[in-house]
Amino acid sequence: MSTAPGTHWQVSATRRIEYDLLNVADVFDPRSDALLSMGRVQDGRRFVVVDACVHAHHGARICAYFAQHRVDARIITLPGGEGGKTLEAWLSVLRELDGFPIHRRDEPVIAIGGGVLTDVVGYAAASYRRGVPHIKVPTTLMGYVDAAVGIKTGINFNGHKNRLGNFEPPRRVLLDRSLLRTLSPRHLRNGLCEIVKLAVIRDAALFRLLEQHGAASLATAFQDARGGDILDRAIGGMLEELAPNLHEEELARKVDFGHTFSYGLETRHGDDLLHGEAVLLDILVSTAIARRRSLLGAAAAERIFAVVDHLGLAPDLALLDAELMWQSLLDRVEHRNGLQRVPLPAAVGECTFVNDIARAEIEASIQTLHDRTTTDHDRIAER
Amino acid sequence: MSTAPGTHWQVSATRRIEYDLLNVADVFDPRSDALLSMGRVQDGRRFVVVDACVHAHHGARICAYFAQHRVDARIITLPGGEGGKTLEAWLSVLRELDGFPIHRRDEPVIAIGGGVLTDVVGYAAASYRRGVPHIKVPTTLMGYVDAAVGIKTGINFNGHKNRLGNFEPPRRVLLDRSLLRTLSPRHLRNGLCEIVKLAVIRDAALFRLLEQHGAASLATAFQDARGGDILDRAIGGMLEELAPNLHEEELARKVDFGHTFSYGLETRHGDDLLHGEAVLLDILVSTAIARRRSLLGAAAAERIFAVVDHLGLAPDLALLDAELMWQSLLDRVEHRNGLQRVPLPAAVGECTFVNDIARAEIEASIQTLHDRTTTDHDRIAER
Repeated sequence: MSTAPGTHWQVSATRRIEYDLLNVADVFDPRSDALLSMGRVQDGRRFVVVDACVHAHHGARICAYFAQHRVDARIITLPGGEGGKTLEAWLSVLRELDGFPIHRRDEPVIAIGGGVLTDVVGYAAASYRRGVPHIKVPTTLMGYVDAAVGIKTGINFNGHKNRLGNFEPPRRVLLDRSLLRTLSPRHLRNGLCEIVKLAVIRDAALFRLLEQHGAASLATAFQDARGGDILDRAIGGMLEELAPNLHEEELARKVDFGHTFSYGLETRHGDDLLHGEAVLLDILVSTAIARRRSLLGAAAAERIFAVVDHLGLAPDLALLDAELMWQSLLDRVEHRNGLQRVPLPAAVGECTFVNDIARAEIEASIQTLHDRTTTDHDRIAER
Repeated sequence: MSTAPGTHWQVSATRRIEYDLLNVADVFDPRSDALLSMGRVQDGRRFVVVDACVHAHHGARICAYFAQHRVDARIITLPGGEGGKTLEAWLSVLRELDGFPIHRRDEPVIAIGGGVLTDVVGYAAASYRRGVPHIKVPTTLMGYVDAAVGIKTGINFNGHKNRLGNFEPPRRVLLDRSLLRTLSPRHLRNGLCEIVKLAVIRDAALFRLLEQHGAASLATAFQDARGGDILDRAIGGMLEELAPNLHEEELARKVDFGHTFSYGLETRHGDDLLHGEAVLLDILVSTAIARRRSLLGAAAAERIFAVVDHLGLAPDLALLDAELMWQSLLDRVEHRNGLQRVPLPAAVGECTFVNDIARAEIEASIQTLHDRTTTDHDRIAER
């Protein structure tokens, strides 16, 4: 800090951000100490928030885990799903937390659930006493490859997604692939859409993995060896994008691919459209825009459309609405500080940014997608 | 970031914190560009939150300022005072902000008011879209020398002071001493208690300034030359304590002097006891504890008691309550991660930390203060 008394003081400092992500084989195995890492065990307490569905499957093991380690745990449940990402849910976590005193630094809050739950609980931990540490255990594929990987927390507010939140690193993320076993096919596909996003916009090798092994891995809930490769590659790639830009000082972000038009779609359709499903619709429109501009070659565009078909992701094109998506883009311009900064694929695994998408272009691209589907159906019908 | 695919990923990064504090002669003078600094002016918008009392005095000039600069400003008011530091006030600011779109990075929110207002608005700005920039213009002495200087934001929650909040630096703090002119004597004394705190615990020269010139400066609302010296020295000293420890990674903090027992007193007495008044009671009890332990010499203790008398700070000793203050200390132990870490004066301008204050010691020290006052009264009666 430099001071020139009487006129001007300058404060300069840095905050160190450190966290890690660990693959763990069976996180609720009482022989594992992973869940109790990053804090004190002796006379320790833990405030634990568990997704209600996860609790139905694993609640008894979670209770037994803390009992075995003689740690005084307060375990509460929250409903999962986008509908749970509310101010009320956040406040209820905070009230419960305030009723179970924990030390400010060495008794991390533990969040066990999907992306919505880890976002809400992360934001509660980040806000309580101006921030207590937290650990994330993602239990959905969306949480596993996306929400739990970075440092963004948040809740919906005033009819807008993630309008409140902050940037707060977890102390640790525990990745237990076996938890994905009980996910429904729809929720597996939901998370897979974020993997497709990363593959298209930055990782041609991951894209080839999806082309060759994606459908088979999906069928095993990513429990096969190739599934492990796909998940590790997706997480590593996501971290390479996020780590140098944790606070989004650079607003042109490759990982925003699929996150421009999806914003409005999600806001309108709420629980009927999962985040990944909205992202997939955006990926398709963005790909069509890139193709119409000849930023993307015909063969690359076809590979992208084909992998979506091959993985059985079944986007509901009837939800596409040019006006809604245009309004969504305008809101993103506020969010991206005055420029569109829309990532578009320039090849499979390559990204470019544009700032001049017109409303008519969105409309034409939606039409292209509809025409393509009709043609496919005709082709199938003609066989 | 280092990665060992398949097992472990480590994320390491730093967040750069940069902000400054400027002395400004007349911040609402249309010829000054200070209020519009740190953002775009051309086609710019500003969301401005003003303390209702400040608005009564300066509202017309504030409106004229933005009109003159052709900046589209949405100006809203909030009631000041501890009673305004609520979840509801925070949410109302957020709803208004969400209804007045601003660019995420170059249209900083402007908070004009006392410590409560800048804490609430700072927390709203820090939470909106995971953080938009903000500028603080403190209008009370408490804001000027304390709340606006650091990076802590917050609101009261669940019956606890500052239970929610975060660490978010302002982009800039504008210090306009002339705004203190309209403060009531009680609010001037309120802020002065924080200056006394700094003087006792870390700055013997500032203490001498208070002994020699404090009462006269107080009488001018710190508009005289010595008043400027006192304010500059207090701000510089506060920043020297805060800047190396902005996120409170070190939990033993000299600036927590006066902030251990005051917490419970404020919680019980709400709007009837101002923050500085509670801090002063804590300073006196802490000084008595230090004296009883012989950490502090008799002459130094007498100087501390004498400066409080000389400045006319008139602490209401009837509010002291050993049980309440003991419970407050226990809560601070949670907050300070398992240890008391209570700063006590070791001399005028010198600090030591203790971890073993007993309930009986608080009780005895309160009695000492009562006895001392009675003796003083007797002495005065005997004259």
